[in-house]
Amino acid sequence: MKQLQVLLVAGTHGNEINGIWLFDEWKKSPFLINSHGIQTLKIIGNPEAKKAGTRYIHNDLNRSFKRETFSSLNSSNYEERRASELVNLYGEAGENPCQIAIDFHTTTASMGSCLVVYGRRDADLALASLIQNQLGLPIYLHESDQKQTGFLVESWPCGLVVEIGPVGQSLLNSRIILQTKLILETLMEQIHKVKNFNLFFPEKLVIHRHIKSIDYPKDKDGNLDGYVHSLRQSKDWQELKKGDELFYKLSGETIRFEEQESYIPVFINEAAYVEKNIAMSFTKRELWNFKQSWRQSLIDLVHQK
Amino acid sequence: MKQLQVLLVAGTHGNEINGIWLFDEWKKSPFLINSHGIQTLKIIGNPEAKKAGTRYIHNDLNRSFKRETFSSLNSSNYEERRASELVNLYGEAGENPCQIAIDFHTTTASMGSCLVVYGRRDADLALASLIQNQLGLPIYLHESDQKQTGFLVESWPCGLVVEIGPVGQSLLNSRIILQTKLILETLMEQIHKVKNFNLFFPEKLVIHRHIKSIDYPKDKDGNLDGYVHSLRQSKDWQELKKGDELFYKLSGETIRFEEQESYIPVFINEAAYVEKNIAMSFTKRELWNFKQSWRQSLIDLVHQK
Repeated sequence: MKQLQVLLVAGTHGNEINGIWLFDEWKKSPFLINSHGIQTLKIIGNPEAKKAGTRYIHNDLNRSFKRETFSSLNSSNYEERRASELVNLYGEAGENPCQIAIDFHTTTASMGSCLVVYGRRDADLALASLIQNQLGLPIYLHESDQKQTGFLVESWPCGLVVEIGPVGQSLLNSRIILQTKLILETLMEQIHKVKNFNLFFPEKLVIHRHIKSIDYPKDKDGNLDGYVHSLRQSKDWQELKKGDELFYKLSGETIRFEEQESYIPVFINEAAYVEKNIAMSFTKRELWNFKQSWRQSLIDLVHQK
Repeated sequence: MKQLQVLLVAGTHGNEINGIWLFDEWKKSPFLINSHGIQTLKIIGNPEAKKAGTRYIHNDLNRSFKRETFSSLNSSNYEERRASELVNLYGEAGENPCQIAIDFHTTTASMGSCLVVYGRRDADLALASLIQNQLGLPIYLHESDQKQTGFLVESWPCGLVVEIGPVGQSLLNSRIILQTKLILETLMEQIHKVKNFNLFFPEKLVIHRHIKSIDYPKDKDGNLDGYVHSLRQSKDWQELKKGDELFYKLSGETIRFEEQESYIPVFINEAAYVEKNIAMSFTKRELWNFKQSWRQSLIDLVHQK
């Protein structure tokens, strides 16, 4: 049986630095975080962007994990090369294979701590359930979004994004660092328990299922001409109902939410999403029954069956 | 008599975008801000950095206004070129001369709205007094700091920096935009009053005088190994006394303030100052008497005597 290895990634976006800093401290002080004997590899996702102090060099690395570009080790696009390199180095069939990837992000939105899963893979949902059961974190299920694809963790058999905010880009913040550390420790502990069959899954999990994203108000030339209303700013995870304030224009006009259906908005005013034409995303909060197939999938993966 | 022109600058740091956005909206809707008949020029300080989404390209533009580099229109350093260009275009002796420069900044520190003046120029102190008298904003007097020089506004006969936070880099925020707008309107109104000799100066002003800056904790290799303590984060303008918490290390160690003297800290954990080795700056709060010479200097400048 091969040994389980967990890939821990920080700085997939070069200006999200709290995780990078935590990894550096952990390397200096190996006992800083109890890895419960789980073998980990800690890497900076986008070291060039980190050096430049930007999110990315040519393209968002966390949209660059696409099957069609995975032979791109000679691409002129740095992130295409880097995505291929990471899969070659640490992918399931890579030189130093990892079975689980955890990708640590921060956001300028007031998301608190949350997990993001992409699609409905059994092992992802099992691992997310374990963490939610320990820490109560919301789970954002990102799916059915043709415009946003190519996420890092999708290239590993099991993977989660940890998303923590609000914090400015390129800013270290004590609260964010400690939240990152807590989740990392909990992940290590839970994976250890799966390894030892000492695991307890909840019967239900709460999922925030992605429905769609909406753009900022734009003028006829496509320029931003409004911003997130002060009553919507920092109200991530709080229900949005018909008539609620969405955006404000300096002309004095308030743009309201006009749909009949209500949603739970997330990633409200994430600085890096302006260029993606996303002012916020809408989700539906759902209570799901835990499936035994999820459990089995995670156990099989951890035990390398 | 030449006409008074006020240079309004936003985006001197390319990732401080709220002022840029406000200017754009103002250009689209000329009545958005009442300029009280004062002639203004609105420019983006560092348009290349704005495009790149970074603070600067080669060097901090707001440290590049140095006499020795002002013939550098052919420099390979973008910011040296840009500083020379701005002075040639809009300086007192430039093609389109401006007498007053107002430079709009944002910070990741919890500074609220404040004014920064550099050195003790009469006209600067007079204009800052008028604004403090209207809005109660704190004034940070930056002086006697050999490591930080070459500020944009120093190249104009009168100039202030408006600094507003907290807001992340490259993030639009409704509160920051409205605070910027209010100060801009108040500046226009007060300059208009000086022009019409309808001005009322306070007898006193409160100054936060720069004393020194302190660095983050570093390890023996010079790497950051601690961050701002959660009890110090966001406590700008609040007195720091002996024994108070300053920094925290993940080892569990708290680094406290050990001097006998107390200070008022500002720019606590400004993301862009990490590379300048500044974790925060210390000031002394002082009550100054208003001097008639300040008043006369501003009146003479506005009336182009």
